[in-house]
Amino acid sequence: MIVGNRVGYQILKGGNSSFQTLNPRLNEFNDVHIYEATDDEIILAIELAESAFYEYSKISGFKKSLFFQDIVQLMESQERELYELYCCESGLDQDRAKVELTRTKNQILNFASFIASDEWRFCSSEIPDKNSVPSKPELIKGLFPLGPVVVFGASNFPFAYSTIGGDSISALAAGCPVIVKSHPLHAGTGDLIAKIVIQAAIKNDMPEGIFSNLNSNDYSLGEKLIENPKIKAIGFTGSINGGKAIMRLSQKREEPIPVFAEMGSSNPVIILPSVLRDSAGLWSMNLSNSITNSAGQFCTKPGLLFLVKDEYSTELIDMLVNNVVSKDFQCMLSSSMCSNYNKILKEREGFVKLNYRQGDVKPNYAKPTIGICNSSVFLENEFLAEEVFGPFSLVVECENIDSLKRCISSLKGQLTGTILTDSNEELIETGIIEILQLKVGRMIYNGVPTGVEVVESMQHGGPYPSSSESQTTAVGIDAIYRFVRSICFQNFDHKILPEFLK
Amino acid sequence: MIVGNRVGYQILKGGNSSFQTLNPRLNEFNDVHIYEATDDEIILAIELAESAFYEYSKISGFKKSLFFQDIVQLMESQERELYELYCCESGLDQDRAKVELTRTKNQILNFASFIASDEWRFCSSEIPDKNSVPSKPELIKGLFPLGPVVVFGASNFPFAYSTIGGDSISALAAGCPVIVKSHPLHAGTGDLIAKIVIQAAIKNDMPEGIFSNLNSNDYSLGEKLIENPKIKAIGFTGSINGGKAIMRLSQKREEPIPVFAEMGSSNPVIILPSVLRDSAGLWSMNLSNSITNSAGQFCTKPGLLFLVKDEYSTELIDMLVNNVVSKDFQCMLSSSMCSNYNKILKEREGFVKLNYRQGDVKPNYAKPTIGICNSSVFLENEFLAEEVFGPFSLVVECENIDSLKRCISSLKGQLTGTILTDSNEELIETGIIEILQLKVGRMIYNGVPTGVEVVESMQHGGPYPSSSESQTTAVGIDAIYRFVRSICFQNFDHKILPEFLK
Repeated sequence: MIVGNRVGYQILKGGNSSFQTLNPRLNEFNDVHIYEATDDEIILAIELAESAFYEYSKISGFKKSLFFQDIVQLMESQERELYELYCCESGLDQDRAKVELTRTKNQILNFASFIASDEWRFCSSEIPDKNSVPSKPELIKGLFPLGPVVVFGASNFPFAYSTIGGDSISALAAGCPVIVKSHPLHAGTGDLIAKIVIQAAIKNDMPEGIFSNLNSNDYSLGEKLIENPKIKAIGFTGSINGGKAIMRLSQKREEPIPVFAEMGSSNPVIILPSVLRDSAGLWSMNLSNSITNSAGQFCTKPGLLFLVKDEYSTELIDMLVNNVVSKDFQCMLSSSMCSNYNKILKEREGFVKLNYRQGDVKPNYAKPTIGICNSSVFLENEFLAEEVFGPFSLVVECENIDSLKRCISSLKGQLTGTILTDSNEELIETGIIEILQLKVGRMIYNGVPTGVEVVESMQHGGPYPSSSESQTTAVGIDAIYRFVRSICFQNFDHKILPEFLK
Repeated sequence: MIVGNRVGYQILKGGNSSFQTLNPRLNEFNDVHIYEATDDEIILAIELAESAFYEYSKISGFKKSLFFQDIVQLMESQERELYELYCCESGLDQDRAKVELTRTKNQILNFASFIASDEWRFCSSEIPDKNSVPSKPELIKGLFPLGPVVVFGASNFPFAYSTIGGDSISALAAGCPVIVKSHPLHAGTGDLIAKIVIQAAIKNDMPEGIFSNLNSNDYSLGEKLIENPKIKAIGFTGSINGGKAIMRLSQKREEPIPVFAEMGSSNPVIILPSVLRDSAGLWSMNLSNSITNSAGQFCTKPGLLFLVKDEYSTELIDMLVNNVVSKDFQCMLSSSMCSNYNKILKEREGFVKLNYRQGDVKPNYAKPTIGICNSSVFLENEFLAEEVFGPFSLVVECENIDSLKRCISSLKGQLTGTILTDSNEELIETGIIEILQLKVGRMIYNGVPTGVEVVESMQHGGPYPSSSESQTTAVGIDAIYRFVRSICFQNFDHKILPEFLK
């Protein structure tokens, strides 16, 4: 399979550098050869996006919703090829591929139904009053798209947070053309999806340039896209370092632009004493599944577990360790992610007790691991609070509730925070809710943080550094508001107002 | 009058540097001596704000609304003192003081009535479904305050955009404590207002620290406030350079925070040919009043007037020049603003024809001036598009509609854009609406941009650099959303949810 760059409705292969994707399970290259985008191809994609913007921003929500529905239909007709390549390029299994494609299709259909009427773009209006002194004008406020948006595909969600995942579809729904910087780990899957999006766009007479898909195996493509003055916003899901670099580049532009970066999280779980007494079995099982699901490569994986050391705590920890350690060794998304996982565990070795199963591992496979330390060690070594991407979680044993609260207070911003308790009195007495709430975007009560519902009430985004813009969400319908701004029309003759504001 | 720093409920004068305010009309210092805040006072204000936040964020909207109403009542009982000091410190006249205080009171009462019920903080909820596989959790999303906010007082709005102006009251309404960096030009007025806010806070049992008012005549106070990790957002109204500096400082923090900076604008006005033919008299009068109102010291002053040179255009320009030039010389807010105004006009002299009345001016008084140039000169000299703070506007004569459109396309982001026309056919044919819309936050049809209604449908904020965050507004109820973020509660027992989410 030869993969070019989809620049508007063309497939361009003008460059002389290319790369291949790896099958991490087999540790062999896939027969997928990807051309890296040239400077000319990048510029052309941006110019097409800009010129498409004028037309696309005026197309009715209803017409866009038909386009979206066709994307889903085309996905369904090509499920088999999509699953196959997805598994080969990610090391994730077919079940996960199916769940993720279903989720992706639901996201697209959610937006299709939300924008089918343009009503959502109307904000409010003010009735004029010619008799007041000074006279009050008529004001009508509506939402308008920002302009061309660049979306960085995520390594861990080839469908749901890449080519036509949450960022792309919410930007397109808002009326913004999208240029995807495809994730190199699954560039073949990305190209299959991009082909579908473009087929649907052509079928629905969308202006050429509303969608392009560019490939590169290094940072330069991303940099060139961010630096171009025609780009008006960025969507990103990935590491903290990647997100920070994008924020820096955006701020260095003559016109800084909004960067919606979702940058990972350690997702603290607070296990209160009542749980240790009464439901240790249940939660050690639920947590171990949540920690190791998809090899722990979820941004909402519970990475920090806090509990108060008492006569019952050892029992829960033992069960948790047994559950996690007895899981199969797990294939990670890439060899560099796997070696990074092993490197990070090695660095933690002097500080925390690591529990994992001995034995040989295949290349790119990780050992599910539970670390244990006490709260003093945790508080003295800030890096222990950082996200570890992979099937690992750190149990922090605290002397008492106060030291547990100090640990929570020491955390930076997180996507989620979870509280496990069998007693509301206990919970209220600790005052944990108020402390945890300051740190997170989503609070979970007696549950696990993995499993992010794609609905309006979801909040996927928390204080920095879990997100660059804690006031927005990357999941659910509200994600669309990241890519619009309000314009107020004062005293306009209604005949010349946009249709949805009349 | 000796002015200290209001740190929580104390008045502190621990420093050994102080300054005085100037009466720009008389060019004499006022008898207002202001102590600059010391480092200890700054730290204390921040610590009080942080500890007040926990309590204040839980206080009901209803209780906060009573506090707001008392602020307005106290303002009314002290109107005379407020007007007097306002005029002495700003050089603005009593009529303007009255209009601005009325506006400020209305802003406060608008927020009081908006937050009287906490309903606005509820976003949406999702009904749980235990039968679906996997089971769907209950999700409830609500809005929560960000934390302590720093507000920089604006030079040109001692009441409406300073101490308890739009930024402060929207942050307090959101549940955020506020530390004001008072504007040194009107620090006495700021202190009178701060005293009122604190009296109302004490009367309503608000936690100490929800409001502090600090003074300084240089940048260091602002820098220390922005750099402190306990501060979670910034509100600013002022110059582009000031706004940029604040954005840079915020990005350099370990945790970057949102900066809501409103940084001025040239507010282009497009005068289409039909107006030149039929309503030149009306619009030359309206525009000249708008340009010189309050000495042209409004962020929405029409600073750029574009028209197509034809047989009628000279007549409108002549009338406009006559109207503007015949106005009285106008007192500016400060001597440095006035000398800056003169310096900028001097710099433009070689590029544009300047029209003003000859004659001696008193210190701090500016000559109302109209500049004229053609579109080639305008396009070749980017600095001509920049805001000139003061009673000046630049007429750009374009050869035809295309060169006019090139001029509009060359502009950076603006707060407003105005179109004057007597013919919708003419307007549609030019395609001006689409081009202008990309550049502005508010579009005005046959009106002037000054006069910003304080209502929900107002949009006061445009693309960068007119605002740092074009997706928010600094005026109207929607300004409150700058200071909150969403938190989603998953499967929480309703008994322990915040009252407004139950």
